[in-house]
Amino acid sequence: MPDYKAPLDDIRFVIERQLATYELWHSLRNFEDLDKNTVEAILSECGKIAGDAIAPCSREADEQGCQLQEGNVAVPQGFADAYQLLCDGGWCSLSGNPEYGGMGLPKSLVAAVDEMVQGACMSFGLLPMLTAGACLAIDAHGSDALKSTYLEKMYSGAWSGAMDLTEPHAGTDLGLIRTRAEPLADDSYAVTGTKIFITWGEHQLAENIIHLVLAKLPDAPAGSRGISMFLVPKYIPDAQGEPGERNRFSCGGLEKKMGIKASPTCVMNFDGARGWLVGEPHKGLQAMFTMMNYERLVVGIQGVGAAEASYQNAVSYARERLQGRSPVGAHSPEKEADNLLVHPDVRRMLLTMRALNEAGRAFYIYVSQWLDIAKFSDDQQRKTQAEALVALLTPVAKGFMTDRAFEVAVLGQQVYGGHGFIREWGQEQLVRDTRITQIYEGTNGVQAMDLVGRKTVATHGQLLDVFVGDVDAFVAGLANKRELSSLITPLQQAIVLLQTTTHSIVQQSADNRFLPGAVAVDYQDMVGYVCYAYMWLRAAAAVRGDDSDFASAKRATAEFYMLKLLPQVDTLARRVVAGSAPVMAMQDDWF
Amino acid sequence: MPDYKAPLDDIRFVIERQLATYELWHSLRNFEDLDKNTVEAILSECGKIAGDAIAPCSREADEQGCQLQEGNVAVPQGFADAYQLLCDGGWCSLSGNPEYGGMGLPKSLVAAVDEMVQGACMSFGLLPMLTAGACLAIDAHGSDALKSTYLEKMYSGAWSGAMDLTEPHAGTDLGLIRTRAEPLADDSYAVTGTKIFITWGEHQLAENIIHLVLAKLPDAPAGSRGISMFLVPKYIPDAQGEPGERNRFSCGGLEKKMGIKASPTCVMNFDGARGWLVGEPHKGLQAMFTMMNYERLVVGIQGVGAAEASYQNAVSYARERLQGRSPVGAHSPEKEADNLLVHPDVRRMLLTMRALNEAGRAFYIYVSQWLDIAKFSDDQQRKTQAEALVALLTPVAKGFMTDRAFEVAVLGQQVYGGHGFIREWGQEQLVRDTRITQIYEGTNGVQAMDLVGRKTVATHGQLLDVFVGDVDAFVAGLANKRELSSLITPLQQAIVLLQTTTHSIVQQSADNRFLPGAVAVDYQDMVGYVCYAYMWLRAAAAVRGDDSDFASAKRATAEFYMLKLLPQVDTLARRVVAGSAPVMAMQDDWF
Repeated sequence: MPDYKAPLDDIRFVIERQLATYELWHSLRNFEDLDKNTVEAILSECGKIAGDAIAPCSREADEQGCQLQEGNVAVPQGFADAYQLLCDGGWCSLSGNPEYGGMGLPKSLVAAVDEMVQGACMSFGLLPMLTAGACLAIDAHGSDALKSTYLEKMYSGAWSGAMDLTEPHAGTDLGLIRTRAEPLADDSYAVTGTKIFITWGEHQLAENIIHLVLAKLPDAPAGSRGISMFLVPKYIPDAQGEPGERNRFSCGGLEKKMGIKASPTCVMNFDGARGWLVGEPHKGLQAMFTMMNYERLVVGIQGVGAAEASYQNAVSYARERLQGRSPVGAHSPEKEADNLLVHPDVRRMLLTMRALNEAGRAFYIYVSQWLDIAKFSDDQQRKTQAEALVALLTPVAKGFMTDRAFEVAVLGQQVYGGHGFIREWGQEQLVRDTRITQIYEGTNGVQAMDLVGRKTVATHGQLLDVFVGDVDAFVAGLANKRELSSLITPLQQAIVLLQTTTHSIVQQSADNRFLPGAVAVDYQDMVGYVCYAYMWLRAAAAVRGDDSDFASAKRATAEFYMLKLLPQVDTLARRVVAGSAPVMAMQDDWF
Repeated sequence: MPDYKAPLDDIRFVIERQLATYELWHSLRNFEDLDKNTVEAILSECGKIAGDAIAPCSREADEQGCQLQEGNVAVPQGFADAYQLLCDGGWCSLSGNPEYGGMGLPKSLVAAVDEMVQGACMSFGLLPMLTAGACLAIDAHGSDALKSTYLEKMYSGAWSGAMDLTEPHAGTDLGLIRTRAEPLADDSYAVTGTKIFITWGEHQLAENIIHLVLAKLPDAPAGSRGISMFLVPKYIPDAQGEPGERNRFSCGGLEKKMGIKASPTCVMNFDGARGWLVGEPHKGLQAMFTMMNYERLVVGIQGVGAAEASYQNAVSYARERLQGRSPVGAHSPEKEADNLLVHPDVRRMLLTMRALNEAGRAFYIYVSQWLDIAKFSDDQQRKTQAEALVALLTPVAKGFMTDRAFEVAVLGQQVYGGHGFIREWGQEQLVRDTRITQIYEGTNGVQAMDLVGRKTVATHGQLLDVFVGDVDAFVAGLANKRELSSLITPLQQAIVLLQTTTHSIVQQSADNRFLPGAVAVDYQDMVGYVCYAYMWLRAAAAVRGDDSDFASAKRATAEFYMLKLLPQVDTLARRVVAGSAPVMAMQDDWF
């Protein structure tokens, strides 16, 4: 049985040393006073809840799944207690707006909490994650009335959130949705339509469920410019703000899925349900993007969380499992066989997992730092830089991080050999759970199209220049670069290759509208590998002069990354250079 | 719901044109008379059974799974009828020894049958696959008495086979097994021990189940040199050769697995069960390898079969699903959106799937041709060449083909977006099913170690030279090479890189015993990508002067492969060059 321990040491390392996050916090309004005691209390307490209360539910919850019984959804045993712990500790309010009872903490701290909760059990973690995302959208776009009615209840966890976008015929292309909203006599609307894939859309853990539903007003322009967002509560709050009348919508079915089986994925039927407009009419997609950009980063974090769990299990299995002998002779002659750590191919798998996970952890905190700067800095130049980097790196954080997380989870299963395929060991569940992170909140192909289209071609590569500027500034600030040259040189070479590739994509896209899509995923991978290389340089720089085991492991993993994983950019660049012709030459009816 | 159609056109193309298999057959003893009518009857009849009888069971069978009830195993409904069809048509006897009622057909034909059966339903296909493998081992190593008692019944499908290797503490390292065999007064042995992961180890579809069990004799030397193989039937044949006394072993449990849920994976408890020695005492591992080498190729074929099913579904979904618009404007302005085929990134995924599947299909027939030459040729030089190529390519066929098959199945799921995660659509099942092919019959890491160790370093790269010799001979025989230069050039460049890499591995391994394991999987991938490139050159060469859609698709896919997939060898070569140091620098307690 798997035994998840929150990776507190590495989280502390990233925050305190690798990315100097305290310095950042103390430079921003709101966080001048954020001190180590507070941060440590949050991290270690969350680590306890994740490891002791949430993770122990995960395996059994996957077996139990969810059941729809007369309109109610039964979720696995154990979730109720774990959720109550989250609520009691105020864990759903961490990023919330303090005006409405939120704790207003920086994302670069809350992101680490996200990782621990998601790493402990992704199915469970989706519930607070969706609530937090919905709160963000309501806080950013909702009226004061909506905010004061809903936010405090949602920050407390008493009420949860859900996002209702997809319809049977409309996933990526939300312009096709058919759900309608008709104005009623008061300030509300009657929402009618069917939504699918609604995560935690119905359940009994919270007293109320607040759906953010995309729908079209009667006068809506066609396509994605005609979408509005509505807040549709399961129970309409009464005059005291308590759950009142049951709204006219219900869960019509639960999907049977490959993974995240312990989270209900609902078909929601809205039948003239009362809803309130959030934001401007026809601007619902923009409003939803506030939530989706947040969710996209957290989906990337989910990947790292699950991949960390897989790594922990794999290392512990590799230590205990005795099979074969070291290539240089018996390592443990007193035993009938050596453990798996003697086998170079097993070490390759474990190091790949470790190199990708730790870079991923640093990367999500790096992106979170820029989110915090964009939101909380008073320095306009830094804000502009931060907005550029958030725009550039959000699709990478979602797409690349989850692609690597799936790769890691598959490796973690492979380390177990045949036992990796057996459910009780837990590794195959992590593969099944992680797989969804590549699909939902915009498939990774869609992320890549966003990166290459809106973020690269449309900006003539300027956002990437901002990123390279940050790397250059970091390298320029390093004392005694020679000591780190085995990391700096490959990183800089990869950046040059990335810049050449970017330039070529921007140039060619002017005449070739197939190009961006044809090379999108390869380009996203290139950017991702370079970002992770930068994280590894920063890790190695942070441990200079430190000869602890922790520091030595960082250095060894950094070298491994540069020598074994970063070279993927060579192939990716060649694939991009090959362009769109090989993809478009195939006629439709030849497939 | 998925709808599998056996890929008969492509199978015919590979056999008739791409790999000129008739010419081969007619050059071998036994197959001088194998004519097109016979072959066509076999292929098309098998295609019907696969598409109409087996495939329709697959989805529901995955949901039903298997149940152990008082020692009996209930398998999904529908399997009994499908299995009866296989038996009635003599499909279990195709490769069997004609002396005992087998049809003695060449592997390069039977392999295509394997693909169709496995592509239709992998859980089901494992049953005839294990029987055929067990028959091979009995035929090659068993006494005449064993052969005449068992083979005919097994070829007919009335009796099925199982292979019992793994024990809870002994998987890859079979030297650790504890199952014991004590000689009895007659020529039999009493076998005692527990085996796990025994596929189709217990069920009711066949009248008898013949287990090939690895065990140790009392005087066995320690380790893998002390393993013997025993034939242990569920029912001991009586004097008439009919199932008689129930043997002393039973199924003690079924594993709950990630995939292939419709195949029972049994814990088998042997409690003094009567068994008969197959082959020499202490030479059981060699005897088992006859079976395992066969199974390894068929596991590779399983991968291609499942990946083909995933491709068919993905193309059909991409044609029907309307979402978004082509980057150059509406392709189907009369509809509310274009289908997915307009999106370059979707085409990239479909072409990757197609390029890997079709190369895989050609490759398994290519390897099968060499198996046939090794077995049936009277030309000693060709036999020697064939044995070298079978030795070199078997691990590649298992390891590389299944790694690519999993990649394809994941892409085929991705094309479906959110629906790919939902069980009813079938794509996620193919991911779960395909995953096991990377693990069982020796993990893909173990395959790679075999390739780099015994097949490369130990032969000083000579087996690879034989392969390169075959490629060179083919290229030298091509008329008008310029027409194919866009394929020949990258293939030859990749071969040069592979040779340099091979040379470097062989050289360095003399002083560095960690090297082979550290680079094994990367090297296996390099060899695999080169093999597939060779297959694509042969496909393109076979369609020269043909301007049908089929031929045009082959050319387009060949170009895609060379430009988009083969460049992976660049990165792989760099990873190999990086050697073992980055893998070994990490100390055990740093993980």
